[in-house]
Amino acid sequence: MESLTELEQLALAAPINLADGHPRQALTSGQRLIIDRLPELFDSAEAETLDRLEERVQRTFFDALGQCGAPMGDGRVFSLYSSSVATTVLATCLSRRRARVALIHPTFDNIHDLLSGAVPLVPISEAALAEADPGGLGRDGATCVFVTTPNNPTGRWLGRDQLERLACACAAAGLLLCLDTSFRGFDPRTQFDTYEVLEGSGAEYVVIEDTGKLWPVSELKLSFVAVSRGMREEFGHAVRDVLLSVSPLVLRLVEELAIDGAGGGFARLHELIARNRAATAAAIDGLRGVAMPDPDARVSVCRLRFASGPEADRVRRELAAAGVHVLPGRQFHWAHPEQGDRDLRLAVARSPHVLDEALRRLRVVAARQSPVEEAIR
Amino acid sequence: MESLTELEQLALAAPINLADGHPRQALTSGQRLIIDRLPELFDSAEAETLDRLEERVQRTFFDALGQCGAPMGDGRVFSLYSSSVATTVLATCLSRRRARVALIHPTFDNIHDLLSGAVPLVPISEAALAEADPGGLGRDGATCVFVTTPNNPTGRWLGRDQLERLACACAAAGLLLCLDTSFRGFDPRTQFDTYEVLEGSGAEYVVIEDTGKLWPVSELKLSFVAVSRGMREEFGHAVRDVLLSVSPLVLRLVEELAIDGAGGGFARLHELIARNRAATAAAIDGLRGVAMPDPDARVSVCRLRFASGPEADRVRRELAAAGVHVLPGRQFHWAHPEQGDRDLRLAVARSPHVLDEALRRLRVVAARQSPVEEAIR
Repeated sequence: MESLTELEQLALAAPINLADGHPRQALTSGQRLIIDRLPELFDSAEAETLDRLEERVQRTFFDALGQCGAPMGDGRVFSLYSSSVATTVLATCLSRRRARVALIHPTFDNIHDLLSGAVPLVPISEAALAEADPGGLGRDGATCVFVTTPNNPTGRWLGRDQLERLACACAAAGLLLCLDTSFRGFDPRTQFDTYEVLEGSGAEYVVIEDTGKLWPVSELKLSFVAVSRGMREEFGHAVRDVLLSVSPLVLRLVEELAIDGAGGGFARLHELIARNRAATAAAIDGLRGVAMPDPDARVSVCRLRFASGPEADRVRRELAAAGVHVLPGRQFHWAHPEQGDRDLRLAVARSPHVLDEALRRLRVVAARQSPVEEAIR
Repeated sequence: MESLTELEQLALAAPINLADGHPRQALTSGQRLIIDRLPELFDSAEAETLDRLEERVQRTFFDALGQCGAPMGDGRVFSLYSSSVATTVLATCLSRRRARVALIHPTFDNIHDLLSGAVPLVPISEAALAEADPGGLGRDGATCVFVTTPNNPTGRWLGRDQLERLACACAAAGLLLCLDTSFRGFDPRTQFDTYEVLEGSGAEYVVIEDTGKLWPVSELKLSFVAVSRGMREEFGHAVRDVLLSVSPLVLRLVEELAIDGAGGGFARLHELIARNRAATAAAIDGLRGVAMPDPDARVSVCRLRFASGPEADRVRRELAAAGVHVLPGRQFHWAHPEQGDRDLRLAVARSPHVLDEALRRLRVVAARQSPVEEAIR
């Protein structure tokens, strides 16, 4: 089975790419002004010490997303090239401590692929995580729980109370709690102070924060990883095998974009995603056998559910033939691919006119049911 | 033992940092003009398809360093964030094929650290590699040979004939040949067409090329990994777990810097490094018990050898107290740390006035022999 990123790569050259979850909408006027200042940001980044720059940028980004309790200034927030590189570093740590990981199911397959080379994985459902059933977590012998929240592709997230229960259950059972919050920026409901909850629980934790999904700035991005006191040495050592420092210029860029975000940029982003999710709902309105299974989600990816696996597959192939690339659902369900058979995933961090044209073609293709499907009905 | 990158990190905030091998000299006027065009490069990168941009940039960079035979256009050159990320991806591949790796000794410790978590390693000396003794390679049951050429910290490199013998020996014995050529740009003697040699040998290969050591552009860099036909699927699949694409803007930046390099920028870089190596030699001239063990090297790092391990250690500590950070030799000798006891490594990709001030302090510290050392003599 091809990985999702391999399928995304085919779509990079496609006329309309709704495959990858990277931000591909047009720059806002505020973001444009920041890009125009890149040479100035280059100079200002070089003019101060890296320590000072890095800590200030991290604080600005975390504060902009409500994460005021993050352990800045204590050597417990690390900057990396991307969330995937952060996951790679985490995999190294997990391998060294011979962890057994209960990994959220479904989720984006590269999280599974990066971890599975290092440690044994057992699936844990979004429902079980929301219930924070410590017995369930321990039953499979897991020593670590990994949660993507908000999740990709479902948009499901842990609320404050749910996270608190899960973190306390992990603390009680001695489990390491790992969170990937790359999609946090899209959903204000997930922007309560995660670190206050985590520090209060006493759990050991690793949180992978990410700037990469938010701003369409030519893949210039960072991942910030915040860890509990007990993980500092272990994670820090693994980080230093991979990099000495990230780019000071990219740090400055992230700082400016976070300031712009807090000053209205995030609100505009949320409007764009809400508008595009609504347009997607409108496009399938009245089509038999197509639904949006996650109506409450706010992330920049959106699932569609079809009447059958073959029908979802037909739509995906015919859409590709019509120049529109989307992702299949199977690979997200890394332990039980058949559970994703009926789903397609659309990336909606796109300019409205791009998305609307893709949706127009989707409507045509989805309405054109195959003779076999017709016969089955 | 602290890793070299951990020691480098302490030096990032130091008054004079000769610890890390990253380029920290002032921008040339040509490079300054390119940085001033970053907003324009951002737009031009967005205006073309990634495939086309990536292939053209790779070709420009490889051609600028004499690598005209690299397998561009055949899906066998991958762009990654950095050479360390490339090494991480390679480690995944090596782990999956259960390789046993003969790794060059000494070399920069993060290569060892990244590989050792994935596969067993046996040391192979620079001399044995230069002789390409296939019996020696096979004796330890190695299935892969990993060579840094030019090497860090010694500057030793494989010439064309040596590489040909080694590659043919690997082909005959069925060994995968991996090269890290991150320092190639400093030494024209290593800029013969490596790929013509490798393809002609029939060996399976992975070559990690790197832009990160050459240009002082705020850590904006890429690693390009070129592989043999038989490694394409395997390596490509592992790459796709880590990233979808690098930054189009950084690709454009690398293109402009490579064009500037080929048009005189590399010659200026070579002059700077030669000047700084000569200044280092002059600074230790007349000092008893200090030598430069690699007089023929041209890379941007430079070893000094002291009369004893304790003396090298004293100089390093007193230099640090005087505000100058350099690296110890032990960690490079990952299998036999004691072989590096007498060495220090100075990074010389620095502006002349910065290096000269560091050398002035070095001369003072090195001349101030400790009472114990005096007593021993």
